[in-house]
Amino acid sequence: MLKFKTVRGMRDFLPEEARTLRYVEDAAQKVAELYGFNEIITPTVESYELLAAKSGEEIRSRMFAFRDLGNREVALRPEFTASVARLVATTLRNEPKPLRLFNVGSVYRYDEPQNGRYREFWQSNYELIGTSKPEADAEILMLTDTLMRTVGLKNHAFRIGHIGILRGIFSQEGLSENDQSAIMQLMDKKQYENALTLAAEKGVSEKGVAVLQSLVEFKGNATSKVVERIMNIVKDYEAAVDATDNLAKILDLIRKSGYTLDVTIDAGFARGLEYYTGMIFEVYVYESNLALGGGGRYDRLVELFGSESTPAVGVAHGIDRIMLALQKQQKQCIKNIGGVAIIPTTEGLKPEALRIARMLREAGIPAEAEVMGRKMAKALEAADKRSLDFALIIGEKELKDGAVVIKDLRKREQKIVKIEKIIVTIKNAPHEN
Amino acid sequence: MLKFKTVRGMRDFLPEEARTLRYVEDAAQKVAELYGFNEIITPTVESYELLAAKSGEEIRSRMFAFRDLGNREVALRPEFTASVARLVATTLRNEPKPLRLFNVGSVYRYDEPQNGRYREFWQSNYELIGTSKPEADAEILMLTDTLMRTVGLKNHAFRIGHIGILRGIFSQEGLSENDQSAIMQLMDKKQYENALTLAAEKGVSEKGVAVLQSLVEFKGNATSKVVERIMNIVKDYEAAVDATDNLAKILDLIRKSGYTLDVTIDAGFARGLEYYTGMIFEVYVYESNLALGGGGRYDRLVELFGSESTPAVGVAHGIDRIMLALQKQQKQCIKNIGGVAIIPTTEGLKPEALRIARMLREAGIPAEAEVMGRKMAKALEAADKRSLDFALIIGEKELKDGAVVIKDLRKREQKIVKIEKIIVTIKNAPHEN
Repeated sequence: MLKFKTVRGMRDFLPEEARTLRYVEDAAQKVAELYGFNEIITPTVESYELLAAKSGEEIRSRMFAFRDLGNREVALRPEFTASVARLVATTLRNEPKPLRLFNVGSVYRYDEPQNGRYREFWQSNYELIGTSKPEADAEILMLTDTLMRTVGLKNHAFRIGHIGILRGIFSQEGLSENDQSAIMQLMDKKQYENALTLAAEKGVSEKGVAVLQSLVEFKGNATSKVVERIMNIVKDYEAAVDATDNLAKILDLIRKSGYTLDVTIDAGFARGLEYYTGMIFEVYVYESNLALGGGGRYDRLVELFGSESTPAVGVAHGIDRIMLALQKQQKQCIKNIGGVAIIPTTEGLKPEALRIARMLREAGIPAEAEVMGRKMAKALEAADKRSLDFALIIGEKELKDGAVVIKDLRKREQKIVKIEKIIVTIKNAPHEN
Repeated sequence: MLKFKTVRGMRDFLPEEARTLRYVEDAAQKVAELYGFNEIITPTVESYELLAAKSGEEIRSRMFAFRDLGNREVALRPEFTASVARLVATTLRNEPKPLRLFNVGSVYRYDEPQNGRYREFWQSNYELIGTSKPEADAEILMLTDTLMRTVGLKNHAFRIGHIGILRGIFSQEGLSENDQSAIMQLMDKKQYENALTLAAEKGVSEKGVAVLQSLVEFKGNATSKVVERIMNIVKDYEAAVDATDNLAKILDLIRKSGYTLDVTIDAGFARGLEYYTGMIFEVYVYESNLALGGGGRYDRLVELFGSESTPAVGVAHGIDRIMLALQKQQKQCIKNIGGVAIIPTTEGLKPEALRIARMLREAGIPAEAEVMGRKMAKALEAADKRSLDFALIIGEKELKDGAVVIKDLRKREQKIVKIEKIIVTIKNAPHEN
């Protein structure tokens, strides 16, 4: 006798959890369709080199990497964007732009397991590729808003920044890309003091440090006034001014198109991944400080994979985290499937039970034929426990008149009904729908 | 500049292929619901020991096995049944039987890639657990029939055998389980001559070999006459007689319940996996000799994972192979999504374009806002290439009257329509549905 359990960090979804996951996935599919995004399915196993080329050190060190039987260095994907970029740089290279590409599925990171965090988790991922226009950024933000509304979450809020503001200052101050990334990684972890110290060490001027300090401290709701104030802080850094202007245009488009997003502008906001080049954002609900999704503009990534210059903007949503948020908000997102138990009263009536099960299924009604050979009382008890809507009892006597007994398991009523009337009886019952 | 491709044996699904895969998955979900099967989602990564305990040597040697960062021996699942058995023996141990459990997703085997065979492939998997009754076997066969019909395949046919017939003879002849498995593996590969030679070597009597020879040669359509003839061949082997009787009951139930399956009985049929104990089957279409699905009864497997004695019957369907079969039968299974391009004629009208895109999406109509800043002619050309149904052209002049130009991209007609009439115009167009 063997005793097994799931591998540490992995988990099973029981039926109710599985249905909630599919509910969120279906919403993600629906939103993809509404925004014109086409789904692609990329492999779970990719070359290590591909995945490592795109990821920062932090993700790279936590990949499920191994050698396959052909001694190839491979890994389980830690996210979707590298695979999408590979596809855009190769197979889809000559497709007309923009490309609107959607992925959904599981990704893998060797993180320390904790409440709601597993080593296999689910994402929906949207990439809008081939345009640097602010309306593309706006679409990604609006799409995220639509997804949150579609799953039924309340009070979601955005945190938006722009990597170009920070990079603009760093570059004008003469910092290398590596130094810039190191500082932004500290900022991403909210270690602002360390970040500013490191900036000074790497040669940022006193004035530059003061500007960074102001930015880091600066947060505000998205109004034109807020953008004006950022503009004022960064006014001596040309690229940072352009970035602020780009951010203003994106927010303007959203506001003017009638979308009222709950937005906090965070000028010192830096997301962990090293490849962002423009607007960045995360979305939250008030019940948790874990982002439900995040993304931004990455204009140089696809290039890295061998394509010509290809601007892009995208977002990944954490399906597990959305499920947790739905749970916290006590959102009912799965309906009772219902269904009908079919119980023959004698051995010889089994074929008739299967025949009626078939008839129901062909009419789109879930049917569970009795397969345990149980007596009626036991079978009815089991049907009750399964929360089925009806039981059909197939007995010799009624069958002689071409009828069966139908028992409404919620109302606790039963009556005799002709076989040809079973479907209409079930479909017209008030609790079916 | 880097150049990457998919790892050998892995592949991308482009939008059309992805939609076909989801179409088959949706059908599998629908059939699960109709038959009362609840979906569970088990991890892609399981302990090597768990997966190895259940699989035959052939699968074991072709697993994607590796050590995770915690030095645990793990592997990517080569199929679903081991995970389901683990769950039934642990978390679901005290749940009332029967359990009807459904999985769908990707599994991994390091096979030599060839036309339609990849190292990552998709399965739908159904297990009916906790009953040894023939009506359970019948349900699994009928469910498979329903799935084939639901996806729209024509002329599918079943090949059905019973492992108990062969094992009954082997056991009475005094063969060990290992020897039995070795012989059946040869039979599974249709190396019947080698199988019979090995049987003789391992001590099967001359009479026993003659009986096996007759069985191997015996195939026929499922009628009561066929079963009678098998019964006659094996009459001196008690357990084989019982097995034949069990097979007869299953086929009888299906026939009497009005299902007309196209069945070939193959008494010498042995499926590769070592854990089957009763009825076994595969389903084919005439266009290919690759099974689209296969399964059978395995009454001792769950026990192996630490549970009490738990009879079960199940089936796995190859989604990739179903997709290939649909292609061969030229079945159209994805419909045009359609959608509407929204094109502002000036920079200043972008917010209005996004506003109208939002309105359409909220009405459930897919909308693609122009995000490339293209001139109207270019944007229209792109919309045509994408096979969209309509384009809305947002111009200053029409907007003054609260209207836009709507262009029907299939009929090549255009007219001016009030903004509040856009949705009804699109929904009433004959090609929308």
